[in-house]
Amino acid sequence: MSELSHLDSAGRARMVDVGDKPITRRAAEAVGQLLCAPETLALVKAGEAPKGNVIATAELAGVMAAKQTAALIPLCHPLPLSQVVVEITPDDGLPGFLVHARVRTTGQTGVEMEALTGVSIACLTLFDMLKAVDKGMEIGAIKVTAKSGGRSGSWQA
Amino acid sequence: MSELSHLDSAGRARMVDVGDKPITRRAAEAVGQLLCAPETLALVKAGEAPKGNVIATAELAGVMAAKQTAALIPLCHPLPLSQVVVEITPDDGLPGFLVHARVRTTGQTGVEMEALTGVSIACLTLFDMLKAVDKGMEIGAIKVTAKSGGRSGSWQA
Amino acid sequence: MSELSHLDSAGRARMVDVGDKPITRRAAEAVGQLLCAPETLALVKAGEAPKGNVIATAELAGVMAAKQTAALIPLCHPLPLSQVVVEITPDDGLPGFLVHARVRTTGQTGVEMEALTGVSIACLTLFDMLKAVDKGMEIGAIKVTAKSGGRSGSWQA
Amino acid sequence: MSELSHLDSAGRARMVDVGDKPITRRAAEAVGQLLCAPETLALVKAGEAPKGNVIATAELAGVMAAKQTAALIPLCHPLPLSQVVVEITPDDGLPGFLVHARVRTTGQTGVEMEALTGVSIACLTLFDMLKAVDKGMEIGAIKVTAKSGGRSGSWQA
Amino acid sequence: MSELSHLDSAGRARMVDVGDKPITRRAAEAVGQLLCAPETLALVKAGEAPKGNVIATAELAGVMAAKQTAALIPLCHPLPLSQVVVEITPDDGLPGFLVHARVRTTGQTGVEMEALTGVSIACLTLFDMLKAVDKGMEIGAIKVTAKSGGRSGSWQA
Amino acid sequence: MSELSHLDSAGRARMVDVGDKPITRRAAEAVGQLLCAPETLALVKAGEAPKGNVIATAELAGVMAAKQTAALIPLCHPLPLSQVVVEITPDDGLPGFLVHARVRTTGQTGVEMEALTGVSIACLTLFDMLKAVDKGMEIGAIKVTAKSGGRSGSWQA
Repeated sequence: MSELSHLDSAGRARMVDVGDKPITRRAAEAVGQLLCAPETLALVKAGEAPKGNVIATAELAGVMAAKQTAALIPLCHPLPLSQVVVEITPDDGLPGFLVHARVRTTGQTGVEMEALTGVSIACLTLFDMLKAVDKGMEIGAIKVTAKSGGRSGSWQA
Repeated sequence: MSELSHLDSAGRARMVDVGDKPITRRAAEAVGQLLCAPETLALVKAGEAPKGNVIATAELAGVMAAKQTAALIPLCHPLPLSQVVVEITPDDGLPGFLVHARVRTTGQTGVEMEALTGVSIACLTLFDMLKAVDKGMEIGAIKVTAKSGGRSGSWQA
Repeated sequence: MSELSHLDSAGRARMVDVGDKPITRRAAEAVGQLLCAPETLALVKAGEAPKGNVIATAELAGVMAAKQTAALIPLCHPLPLSQVVVEITPDDGLPGFLVHARVRTTGQTGVEMEALTGVSIACLTLFDMLKAVDKGMEIGAIKVTAKSGGRSGSWQA
Repeated sequence: MSELSHLDSAGRARMVDVGDKPITRRAAEAVGQLLCAPETLALVKAGEAPKGNVIATAELAGVMAAKQTAALIPLCHPLPLSQVVVEITPDDGLPGFLVHARVRTTGQTGVEMEALTGVSIACLTLFDMLKAVDKGMEIGAIKVTAKSGGRSGSWQA
Repeated sequence: MSELSHLDSAGRARMVDVGDKPITRRAAEAVGQLLCAPETLALVKAGEAPKGNVIATAELAGVMAAKQTAALIPLCHPLPLSQVVVEITPDDGLPGFLVHARVRTTGQTGVEMEALTGVSIACLTLFDMLKAVDKGMEIGAIKVTAKSGGRSGSWQA
Repeated sequence: MSELSHLDSAGRARMVDVGDKPITRRAAEAVGQLLCAPETLALVKAGEAPKGNVIATAELAGVMAAKQTAALIPLCHPLPLSQVVVEITPDDGLPGFLVHARVRTTGQTGVEMEALTGVSIACLTLFDMLKAVDKGMEIGAIKVTAKSGGRSGSWQA
């Protein structure tokens, strides 16, 4: 018998039954980053004025992907989301881009996966738009930074 | 005017026109990893016998997500794929899981994004199945490792 | 700072947080039309007997699309729908087709966008099925005609 | 006027309005089977040790498809699901595979279609993975075996 | 090492590489049936005049689902389809409905799964529209009846 | 027998068989508009500086929707697209927004529906982002303006 919630006693992958969990307001935040060459970052920052579409495109892709989480992650529960925000900040120190997502719902299960999915697809979209000028980029440091609501209460990384 | 292929002269995000590119056989490989606590890794490795469903589930999620790349990444071109393979290996050294994806097509544009999307969603699926026992996991080191076909020829990281 | 609900103070597109809104029964209705040549309309009306599949196909496409609204409109909230009806009426006066959609839910946000999406895709489906005989068709007059439920109460165009 | 719930008085297909139905816990179970040659079954059972990926793949496909039911079945209501389980058992007596699905929700309408869709896509996935060695397979005996919750109470086949 | 094409030498599920296969015109046909009570069949046949929307709705759902095959069946290749036809015939002898699908493409792999998926979802849609009047229906006899194109040539059940 | 290409001789909706059509480069352009109050237009134009996210969001939604055309329009053929561009221009004369889409492919069938779908969803996205300040907006004048490639040659509205 497994101690892993997503495997049953026969080792079979399953969606956990959340039907008995209380319906509460829940939130989760996640972060990630795209590392790139300083020249690539400079190009985007130059391109930001006046239109900013690299970052805006990636933020939007992250928001839309968060809504598709249950279709992408096999054992995730489909649930309505009351808010999704994805914010991308260029960072000279990396150099690269910091990506932050915040997701809220009122439901029976948490939304960490939705926040992580938003971050991941935003990073992939940045990568897609910049890959013609920078082959060596890397996506990383994707993790949950805060979570609230549900039986386990609030949690902060 | 931008030097970025995905912005037009007005800074507007656009799908690059690949209509004039030759139809060639193309391949791409990408990698990534999920870092977790040694206890989490041990649980999965124990659970692997006899069924292996954590890893099998995440590999399959990666394959299926690679096929949805053009729906997830706003400026990606929809294209038929002739092969998608996602392989996950537990690694005591990390500790965690190494994820590798290989994608092939015959078409007018490369498949790096499909390989990266397969890796990313496989990592997220591992995260989802293990998050109940390990809150501090981190996804990272996602990058393209090889690419072949198309005007720019072969490339290896 | 913007007065537009879908932009944050930095001008970034966002999903509005509806988490504090009351859960109420909500409904919305929308209309639209496809203008075509009188001969095109006559062909459909003749084809209606005995099977009616042009109109039935477009109505069904509208219903199915209404359920995909949150996947299509970037900042729309995913929400369960309790009813979707799309009705198409041939109209000799236009000449063309009148399309009407009615959507109901019990939730935290309105369903105008679902009704409008149902109307739009129904119009596009009519266009698709008739474009081989009529190149000059036009879709128009798509608007919300009624809305009820939620903080702002009922509204009629 | 039709006695069929999914046709209105004009014979038009429609989503039934479930807005007045009580929100209750609901469950449904469905079964089905894939009939194949005894040699095909033997190959899978041999392949099961040590990895079992034919069955695991089909079970997972069933779970994921159940979550897409409202996108596939035109007049189905989109609704959150609290649990989906798909279990496949090789059966020498058929010979073939027995597929069983159980779906739970808390909502205004039943989940028979979600259970049936999970069974159907699991059967199709088995078929896909085995068709290179067995052209004559057949999918059948797909039906609802149990249902609970809602106005009509519990029901068992 | 497995003799199953969809498992690699380690037993891992994989998409078969079709990149070396010739691009040929391919077709596949599949059938299936929904068994119901004679009264249910009579209701549909009565309802058919004048609108026929139960059958038209299910046929259309089958066509649309065939186009989603690669998203539903994990190891199926995404490929453009040049034709999809789904035809449903009421049959007093069963009693019930016969469902037939025919799919065509020009590509590197066959379209049996597309035909089978079209049949399956058409059957499920009939079930959905009739389940309020008939709880004991059963879907069955789903199989491939003909296949042409590709290395293995034509085949007929 | 119907003269409509999308109905067979029995009046049944069908996907036209394009398997015999030549593979050629094809393009289509479509336009549409959103009419709004002058104050609404002014708000967007003010908000455009410096970020422009209302228009960028709607353009991107149009591009992404064009790629989903075959999933939305029941009898459309799925096909790879080599380019999609959606451009939105504020227009004081309307007052409102002009939407223009251009789609290219190399395939067996035209891409008018993809261009029209891009325009329609871009209009709906503008509507969604502005509906909180303007209830009386109207979407209209959606039509094909140019088409090239294929048996019927070039065409301009």
